[in-house]
Amino acid sequence: MTATNPAATPEPRAGRPGRIMSAEMAEQPAVLRRILDEGASAIREVAEGIAARNPRFVLLTARGTSDNAALYAKYLLEIRLGRPCGLTSMSTTTAYRAEQDLTDCLVVAVSQSGGSPDLVASTRAAREAGAVTLAVTNNPDSPLAEAAEFHIDVLAGEEKALPATKTYTAELLALYLLVEGLRGSGGAEAAKALPDLAESVLARRDEVRRLAARYRFAERMVITSRGYGYPTAKEAALKLMETSYIPALSYSGADLLHGPLAMVDNVSPVIAIVPDGKGGRALQPVLDRLRDRGADLVVVGPEQQVADASAGFVLPTGDVPEELQPILEILPLQMLAYEVTIARGQDPDAPRALAKVTETR
Amino acid sequence: MTATNPAATPEPRAGRPGRIMSAEMAEQPAVLRRILDEGASAIREVAEGIAARNPRFVLLTARGTSDNAALYAKYLLEIRLGRPCGLTSMSTTTAYRAEQDLTDCLVVAVSQSGGSPDLVASTRAAREAGAVTLAVTNNPDSPLAEAAEFHIDVLAGEEKALPATKTYTAELLALYLLVEGLRGSGGAEAAKALPDLAESVLARRDEVRRLAARYRFAERMVITSRGYGYPTAKEAALKLMETSYIPALSYSGADLLHGPLAMVDNVSPVIAIVPDGKGGRALQPVLDRLRDRGADLVVVGPEQQVADASAGFVLPTGDVPEELQPILEILPLQMLAYEVTIARGQDPDAPRALAKVTETR
Repeated sequence: MTATNPAATPEPRAGRPGRIMSAEMAEQPAVLRRILDEGASAIREVAEGIAARNPRFVLLTARGTSDNAALYAKYLLEIRLGRPCGLTSMSTTTAYRAEQDLTDCLVVAVSQSGGSPDLVASTRAAREAGAVTLAVTNNPDSPLAEAAEFHIDVLAGEEKALPATKTYTAELLALYLLVEGLRGSGGAEAAKALPDLAESVLARRDEVRRLAARYRFAERMVITSRGYGYPTAKEAALKLMETSYIPALSYSGADLLHGPLAMVDNVSPVIAIVPDGKGGRALQPVLDRLRDRGADLVVVGPEQQVADASAGFVLPTGDVPEELQPILEILPLQMLAYEVTIARGQDPDAPRALAKVTETR
Repeated sequence: MTATNPAATPEPRAGRPGRIMSAEMAEQPAVLRRILDEGASAIREVAEGIAARNPRFVLLTARGTSDNAALYAKYLLEIRLGRPCGLTSMSTTTAYRAEQDLTDCLVVAVSQSGGSPDLVASTRAAREAGAVTLAVTNNPDSPLAEAAEFHIDVLAGEEKALPATKTYTAELLALYLLVEGLRGSGGAEAAKALPDLAESVLARRDEVRRLAARYRFAERMVITSRGYGYPTAKEAALKLMETSYIPALSYSGADLLHGPLAMVDNVSPVIAIVPDGKGGRALQPVLDRLRDRGADLVVVGPEQQVADASAGFVLPTGDVPEELQPILEILPLQMLAYEVTIARGQDPDAPRALAKVTETR
């Protein structure tokens, strides 16, 4: 792996389609560096404060991109901290006014803006119900940061593009550091290679552009992974849908074998995110089945897996452990969503273009 | 609402496409009656046994159709029992060997066959980690029923069709009775109108066939709901994909507004499941937005909601409370999946037909 300067890839000119999303994707190495250099100690303090309260059960609350970051945290909390975990259904509080006893629970609300009223309301309700509450946001002055007992700032800087990119990877790293802090471990050491690796991935725009060409006329897509890679599959599907409107269906590999595999034929290309570790090994039978069926399979993962697929993107992971790889895995997929959208003649910065047209009828 | 004899609708002849799925859909009123008449007291005993152990958190484990039933149970447990809840990610135990302290946790595994090895392994692991374990299956002699401390038999009779129908509604009713039992309430009283109502819905095959005509050439579909209706949206999407291969994307109404709405235009028809109650009221802003956009909107729900939509299916709910309506809501959607598949010249009983063709290349 060579660390290439992303400045070598010319940025689209101001005013060109996708300019805002492109600029924010490019900021990601700097944001990761900022969290490690300036944010880690604050996150560790929050973790110590929460650990002292000894929560036994963790509930995560979020929507959209932040919900995928919350799912990543769920894997970390279950696997690395050994705490049972759930993703909340917000309507149980906001629509049904459920009264829950949340003693011994940690409730983590993840939100870029920290401004979503239902998230604020459900966090307040959780606090009143006895939970230790933590908000993870990109705005320390937001109502959500105010509503929760603890707050973590993901330090990504203002996000202007409608498709969230830099706040996603920032949330992942902040949540990783939080869980490591709850475990009483540093964590920053294992993460310190990430900014350079992210830079090297983002520099490979030409490779992604070639991959994008195969999806220019795709009518649908299936994205799969397992374990730590599964949140990446969900976030990649969301990104593709938000920008290109291609219906992208994400499944954990195990669920894919339970039925939706019938949908995978030569008209449904498949993207598999193959973590370098236990999740990737658990995905192997699914990859074998897909290859047996002659599926058009694009792999984001280790070199050999890419070589065995129709095409792919070799992910440079260095010595980064599997649980940190999602921060790198999503990068080529953000770029893919961007490039597919450009290839289809649409603007990644105006994902509601079709909507606007429909509204004027 | 008039209770019509479903025998009045001629069954497809033996050997015709969809014969097995059709027969099993038609069994649903009888299965619901059997659970109420013969199963309710056993479920109440299980509930008493579990309540005596006073679990504080609930984890639900399942895949595919049973995962949608588990999500329904999650709403019941949170809203009606006030217990924090999570859906487990099975790979955390099976692939990553997470060691969790599950003292005070109830782990509920839901599975039609009770035979899935990873479900059995994760239930065993949960029991060893201190959880109270319950298996909800359609086979009391299954390995899963054996692995769990408690067992509930959903009494649906053998399910032969690949798309699960009667075991889904059976699981919903069994889980409802379980949660009512955990609350120390009977519950069977509110449910007793369900078999007749189910019969009246299943008799309206001609109405569903007319709805199916509009999806014959659909390339994708969006299905939405909120609260108790959200598991119905997910299960309807799964059913449509398993049988017709139409990519069907399900979203809670709130999530739909957070991004994927960009995908909804005149080429993405929308099906909304509108519960008669708080969930339906929380969905109202989403329905208004969809109507403003001129979306092709089909509603399953109350009469006025159907009248305001492009088309729909009026759901007869009688005095059935909102939390029991999902048992009825899914019926027209199972029929829709069946009829769309027939209209497209495919066989709902052979959902891997396309797959088989691909495999022989």
